[in-house]
Amino acid sequence: MTEQYRLTIATRGRGSTEITANIAALVQAAAVDTGIAHIFVRHTSCGLAITENADPTVRRDLEMLMQRWAPDGDPAYRHDLEGDDDMAAHARSLLTGTSLSVPFAGGRMLLGTWQGIYLFEHRTQDHQREIVVTLLG
Amino acid sequence: MTEQYRLTIATRGRGSTEITANIAALVQAAAVDTGIAHIFVRHTSCGLAITENADPTVRRDLEMLMQRWAPDGDPAYRHDLEGDDDMAAHARSLLTGTSLSVPFAGGRMLLGTWQGIYLFEHRTQDHQREIVVTLLG
Amino acid sequence: MTEQYRLTIATRGRGSTEITANIAALVQAAAVDTGIAHIFVRHTSCGLAITENADPTVRRDLEMLMQRWAPDGDPAYRHDLEGDDDMAAHARSLLTGTSLSVPFAGGRMLLGTWQGIYLFEHRTQDHQREIVVTLLG
Repeated sequence: MTEQYRLTIATRGRGSTEITANIAALVQAAAVDTGIAHIFVRHTSCGLAITENADPTVRRDLEMLMQRWAPDGDPAYRHDLEGDDDMAAHARSLLTGTSLSVPFAGGRMLLGTWQGIYLFEHRTQDHQREIVVTLLG
Repeated sequence: MTEQYRLTIATRGRGSTEITANIAALVQAAAVDTGIAHIFVRHTSCGLAITENADPTVRRDLEMLMQRWAPDGDPAYRHDLEGDDDMAAHARSLLTGTSLSVPFAGGRMLLGTWQGIYLFEHRTQDHQREIVVTLLG
Repeated sequence: MTEQYRLTIATRGRGSTEITANIAALVQAAAVDTGIAHIFVRHTSCGLAITENADPTVRRDLEMLMQRWAPDGDPAYRHDLEGDDDMAAHARSLLTGTSLSVPFAGGRMLLGTWQGIYLFEHRTQDHQREIVVTLLG
């Protein structure tokens, strides 16, 4: 049994937006009892990751490391049509990934206590990001 | 309802090969209408990633960054039996991942306009790479 | 058809523990014949990855690279409540990911010859790690 939904998330430039509650609401309302929630972004310059939901400095430090791993405006980039954050955003997308999946049972995702699901905007500008959620069970 | 297929992709040494059309053909022919296409490589020295399909310099720049993240022939490696690219290929495989999944509905994957699915060969030599595609819905 | 299981794996501080046999046993006993095994850790400071199962220096070299990518006790971290390995563990978790999935058929995972499934403990202390395995088919 499969259910599929579309979400649009407005991001406010580079940084992370928690979407745990958005996914939890779909899982809770679902007809399927046991399975996985698969989340997919239809873009190549943002990403999805599960990380700590308690101390926001974790996500601040992840941004600092991503800037180190894929610096904005690196002189070695050839792809820079859309600005200094263009190629860096694609590289961050490779590292975070464009999909993730979480098991659920009895209407609840089986996340650990400290796990939150985040959409990471890798561009410096605001964007409307389309997400497809597929509940498989 | 589950369908499973095997593909073999010939790579021409390090670099990326687009496999979007291969997966799209399986999804289009499938009996299952709505679900996810799960793609898995049976190797530890190549990987799968979704990235921009328009400007090939994106993939060139990703290769440049991977060389920076996991340099060939790094003197700190102990695993170098198969040459300078051996351990670097395993490290690139960790970063790109060995599987990915894409939602589909009505015979079409729900990829964004600029998303392509790529097999990244991380070894410098040509290889025949075995891929398992599982359509779940 | 979906089956779901919980495992607890005791780690001995930073390093990798092979869990291929644990997952293989669940797949072999399953009622579902063809599908994917989805594996999820309920934590933000450990991760899952598939890598070479033959030469243990591969995993030693991956640890060396992860220390380079996200150094313990980096002075730029703000999140360091639980010690030098705290933020580094979250960063390693981002890079390895918290879930992975492997196709199976006829009671066996379709892993390549050299592929093993590993739980990477990213903290320096021992931990009990909870894993959810969902078999979808």
